[in-house]
Amino acid sequence: MKGTLYGVGLGPGDPDLITRKAARLIENAEVIAYPTLAGGSSFARAIAAELIPATAQEIVMDVPMSVERGPAQAAYDKGAAEIRAALDAGRDVVALCEGDPFFYGSFMYLFARLRKDYAVEVVPGVTSVTTCAAVSGLPMAARNEVVTILPAPKIAYAGVRQMSDTYPTDIIQGSDTIAIMKLGRHFAAVRAVIKEAGLTEKAVYIERASTPDEVVLPLAQAPEKAPYFSMILIVKGADPWL
Amino acid sequence: MKGTLYGVGLGPGDPDLITRKAARLIENAEVIAYPTLAGGSSFARAIAAELIPATAQEIVMDVPMSVERGPAQAAYDKGAAEIRAALDAGRDVVALCEGDPFFYGSFMYLFARLRKDYAVEVVPGVTSVTTCAAVSGLPMAARNEVVTILPAPKIAYAGVRQMSDTYPTDIIQGSDTIAIMKLGRHFAAVRAVIKEAGLTEKAVYIERASTPDEVVLPLAQAPEKAPYFSMILIVKGADPWL
Repeated sequence: MKGTLYGVGLGPGDPDLITRKAARLIENAEVIAYPTLAGGSSFARAIAAELIPATAQEIVMDVPMSVERGPAQAAYDKGAAEIRAALDAGRDVVALCEGDPFFYGSFMYLFARLRKDYAVEVVPGVTSVTTCAAVSGLPMAARNEVVTILPAPKIAYAGVRQMSDTYPTDIIQGSDTIAIMKLGRHFAAVRAVIKEAGLTEKAVYIERASTPDEVVLPLAQAPEKAPYFSMILIVKGADPWL
Repeated sequence: MKGTLYGVGLGPGDPDLITRKAARLIENAEVIAYPTLAGGSSFARAIAAELIPATAQEIVMDVPMSVERGPAQAAYDKGAAEIRAALDAGRDVVALCEGDPFFYGSFMYLFARLRKDYAVEVVPGVTSVTTCAAVSGLPMAARNEVVTILPAPKIAYAGVRQMSDTYPTDIIQGSDTIAIMKLGRHFAAVRAVIKEAGLTEKAVYIERASTPDEVVLPLAQAPEKAPYFSMILIVKGADPWL
């Protein structure tokens, strides 16, 4: 009998925001799997740390930083092979995922490789998007409002490549609430687009929501540089913030 | 010393998808508050039922079904007054919210009435959107994909009122993944828009995700009528479903 692969969302960072289902799966795990970035520590493992049994086998996928996709895909190939070995031996595997496994997570790379051959269950988690709304005190969507989640590189590249004269402005104009993720090195380009759209006053900048290093600021007061785990939230209908 | 108001997200329906933080707050609650719709039972209370202490005071806001906003707002006024009384007496109040309190939730009505006078903490929850992705086996967003959440009435009214020749088609065309919520009586109008956009084959219909009554079907096989707690998920980049 083959084991089951669980893709387990851990929420945004606060271990208390792990669901009861995820906590139980981790506490009883024989095998856990998680990615690390370029030899660094794993944020996913850190969120779940207090729940991981000392006896659990740990499958670590070290994903290199690279613009090309090949090296990262090779890391997932290697990880998937180790997970296959555990599943074939009848052991369940709990893959740890920051946030939600299917919401901008790397779990999809394991899912794509393994879903045809094994039972896979995905346990949804609290996303960084609603966490940013919670810590900012900004109800992000009500009634029939339209919410768009825009990764920052999409904005930056749209400008550079002139994909369209009006994109991403159309999306920003057509939505009531916009969450811009993955700011990192695209922060300046994103700020410029928001300024042009006249929305700087409505924009809140959030870093590492729900963790001890959390930062929440009006965008106009945000630092020059933004880490990868940061977000801008624009709620057009909100009262002026602060 | 005044009490604190907690807006607590309960997730999509499975009590196991309640976060550890929400569970602890409910288990220790002296006062809980929740809405019911037109005298019916409360979905939020049902999700949390096994955690609610027998000794807890329960503040019930019975929200009438009405197109006009007045009667519902009066129900929230009355509930907010009862919550004020508890907070003024130094008791914390745990407001139970389906999904996430700031994501299409009614908690915003309490938040708007009470946030200036009391400490309010919002505990984010798992949303129905990522839960629908999980139960459908559809990774909903990867890399730089754009996700839009569209309430069905917005689509239906756009067509009827001709708000724009191209809306909501522009939003649907400009997004990689679209989640259409609150189908209910707008289901037929939404189906027509999806068909016109050539996306029926990519659309999955989900009812009551994560509950014992869960339904997951290709849109083409969905029933004629959809309840309020249903959703269509369109992931353009996904493999054909099933």
